[in-house]
Amino acid sequence: MENVSLKKELTSILKDRISLSESTRANFARGEDTYDPVLSQAVVFPETNEEVSRILKLCNEHKVPVVPFGTGTSLEGHVVGNKDGITLSLEKMNKVLSVNASDFDCRVQANVTREQLNEYLREDGVFFPIDPGANAALGGMAATSASGTMAVKYGTMKSVITGLTVVLPNGDIIKTGGRSKKSSAGYNLTNLFIGSEGTLGIITEVQLRLSPIPESIMSAVCHFPSLDDAVKTAQETIQYGVPIARIEMLNKDQMEISINYSKLEDVSALPTLFFEFHGSETSNKEAINIVDEISKNNNGSKFKWADTIEKRKKMWKARWDAWYSVRALIDDGRVYTTDVCVPISKITECVNFAEKEVKKLGLRAPMVGHLGDGNFHIMMPYNPKKDDEYKKIKYFNDILIDKSLELEGTITGEHGIGLHKKNYLLKEHPDNVPLMKSIKRTMDPNNIMNPGKIFDLN
Amino acid sequence: MENVSLKKELTSILKDRISLSESTRANFARGEDTYDPVLSQAVVFPETNEEVSRILKLCNEHKVPVVPFGTGTSLEGHVVGNKDGITLSLEKMNKVLSVNASDFDCRVQANVTREQLNEYLREDGVFFPIDPGANAALGGMAATSASGTMAVKYGTMKSVITGLTVVLPNGDIIKTGGRSKKSSAGYNLTNLFIGSEGTLGIITEVQLRLSPIPESIMSAVCHFPSLDDAVKTAQETIQYGVPIARIEMLNKDQMEISINYSKLEDVSALPTLFFEFHGSETSNKEAINIVDEISKNNNGSKFKWADTIEKRKKMWKARWDAWYSVRALIDDGRVYTTDVCVPISKITECVNFAEKEVKKLGLRAPMVGHLGDGNFHIMMPYNPKKDDEYKKIKYFNDILIDKSLELEGTITGEHGIGLHKKNYLLKEHPDNVPLMKSIKRTMDPNNIMNPGKIFDLN
Repeated sequence: MENVSLKKELTSILKDRISLSESTRANFARGEDTYDPVLSQAVVFPETNEEVSRILKLCNEHKVPVVPFGTGTSLEGHVVGNKDGITLSLEKMNKVLSVNASDFDCRVQANVTREQLNEYLREDGVFFPIDPGANAALGGMAATSASGTMAVKYGTMKSVITGLTVVLPNGDIIKTGGRSKKSSAGYNLTNLFIGSEGTLGIITEVQLRLSPIPESIMSAVCHFPSLDDAVKTAQETIQYGVPIARIEMLNKDQMEISINYSKLEDVSALPTLFFEFHGSETSNKEAINIVDEISKNNNGSKFKWADTIEKRKKMWKARWDAWYSVRALIDDGRVYTTDVCVPISKITECVNFAEKEVKKLGLRAPMVGHLGDGNFHIMMPYNPKKDDEYKKIKYFNDILIDKSLELEGTITGEHGIGLHKKNYLLKEHPDNVPLMKSIKRTMDPNNIMNPGKIFDLN
Repeated sequence: MENVSLKKELTSILKDRISLSESTRANFARGEDTYDPVLSQAVVFPETNEEVSRILKLCNEHKVPVVPFGTGTSLEGHVVGNKDGITLSLEKMNKVLSVNASDFDCRVQANVTREQLNEYLREDGVFFPIDPGANAALGGMAATSASGTMAVKYGTMKSVITGLTVVLPNGDIIKTGGRSKKSSAGYNLTNLFIGSEGTLGIITEVQLRLSPIPESIMSAVCHFPSLDDAVKTAQETIQYGVPIARIEMLNKDQMEISINYSKLEDVSALPTLFFEFHGSETSNKEAINIVDEISKNNNGSKFKWADTIEKRKKMWKARWDAWYSVRALIDDGRVYTTDVCVPISKITECVNFAEKEVKKLGLRAPMVGHLGDGNFHIMMPYNPKKDDEYKKIKYFNDILIDKSLELEGTITGEHGIGLHKKNYLLKEHPDNVPLMKSIKRTMDPNNIMNPGKIFDLN
């Protein structure tokens, strides 16, 4: 580590919880993104808010960059290391701090993952509904404003977080928001940190709203002869106002890959919707009748019911593993993932555009979509050594971004900006970025917090 | 107007849409709060974003304060005038700009009121669900992070706004967020302006999520022998996870006042809950059965159904008019309104505490509550000439605030800070206020935007 005095000071705080070894630094050098790894000079593993505070205070004094690192499941380069800085892993801050089931809330340290939390809550009649697929850390999900398959019913991290503990770049520890379901007490700092991608401070604790476990959960799969039919079904389901908990699309290519990777049985390699209904048995049946009707009108197959917990788990596991199933297609390959989101009335046009263009370019393009929210991902595996492949993919994403903006959509429904979408952010919000930068400069005058992510300051 | 050159420049922009008359200035000198009116030097009535921009640019150059004014229904002093500044009325910016019913969204100018919007949407099968009681402007509701009777099902302004047009203090016009249901594109500027109470810029347009009109709406009234029984029923309904659209409490005192003021028939002057269920007929019936059971266990009366639209309208009109019914009790009187909000498991304790303390103090204290969210208001009418009365009320609110903070609640569930709760904000969020101030200083270096509201800068 170049800065010997900082190294000494950090070691005096952290004892053996600072690593300078190349192998550790390499483990924290990137997420699940397309970037080349960048090794920070050290990786530190604080255990308390106070330790995080002392670390940031020191780094701020030394003007040394800090990259916060959760589970490393970012797809956009958020956690790519900094060669002049340190990476701060939150992995030792992984405790559930409190659960109030009768208030539907809980407080967790940043690195509690969503699966860990739901395991912890199992006996309490409540669950945490935001499901981005990956078993991500809740702090990271807050920092990237994540959502996922259940957002259509339960909202996004923005709507389920009521408070945070954040360590500011100068080491100040602040507690935003609180436990009450709503509040109008001053600026909404909680939501300023949600989606700030580690550039304004480090989220160390998250106060979350939970949901009652529904009396009845019913999951089904429905195949369609064409992707257009599947997407239309999803669009019409939402437009009809049917209460639905999940409505996930997988295109033909993705179904083929998932059937192989996840050893799925009883399903076909056809454009497919995965449905899930949460409610009472009666209300679910009502909803299902409507969706069944809409599906049939769009040439959908009979619903195949995942009628046991095991079948349901297997079905959703396959959905969650979609990204991994694609990555497994290429040795040492990378996966370029798109993340546009458009108003629901434009989703058919947008998906059809994407399908046509990938075909034109001869790309392999498995697709999954949180169609209820107008959000879908195309996961394009490629070999980073083949420059040509990447160029095509990049070109495709450029035109998809332009299309989604033309359709009044956004460049990112849920993955965030990171390193990857800085130029796209300027396309979507040219008039917002200067204000974002001025807030950043005020809160982090030495630009130590995850510099170069979301935007370049200079 | 003291600043002659500013007056000239404003007049050249606005022609006759600037008023220096005492009567107009008096009309815009306060809201429905407890403050003495303060007359700004002029009131301006811009019609476009560009006019607002030119006005702010000028005022910023001249370092002249600007107080944004919507419908003036603030209870906290947000719109009290500024003797050195101007008041900017948004009343001429009252157009619905677009409605996309199939996407459940619309865009409105800031001074469209919620009733106006719902009237406009009547044929579209969608409605705007946030209902703070007053027929407030949507821009003002955004600026104060309002919510109201339907938040328990439909959320608050924070969750239904997906974008804004804001004019910054330097005159820059920015468009935050967008039409897609979710986005992770950079800092959440939309939510920074929501609840900023006109201190960071002027919200001129609001992009809103709408909801499908439910197939079935069922409203009922239930009386209880004691307030404790009523509150427990609400608490248990929420804790059971029953889907409910509204669950409003009125205490005995408020019921008496409302029966007189709103000429209500068929109801009694007893602690009361107003329920509303939105869903399919079957799902509503299921929910009602559960709530009926819970009510009975807490000594509730038989449900009285508002089974026609007229009856329902009358019932809710009485609820909306609660504040006006209290104000009508005293000639030239004022109404001091509390707004604490606590976790649902603490609501019974908090309401019981309030009831005991008002009795001790011999205050008249009609109460209404959005109990499903843990939020309730005590509306205390008083004569501003009687110093003693105000002192008692102020003392009561102080101890209620302390109690709600002790119960991990917030000082304001939905009314905001304004002039009234600046000291309370420091109690709730002492560690947040410095950061709020530094954001304010960055965005409004001349402190022209609604200075003195939320916090004092110096």
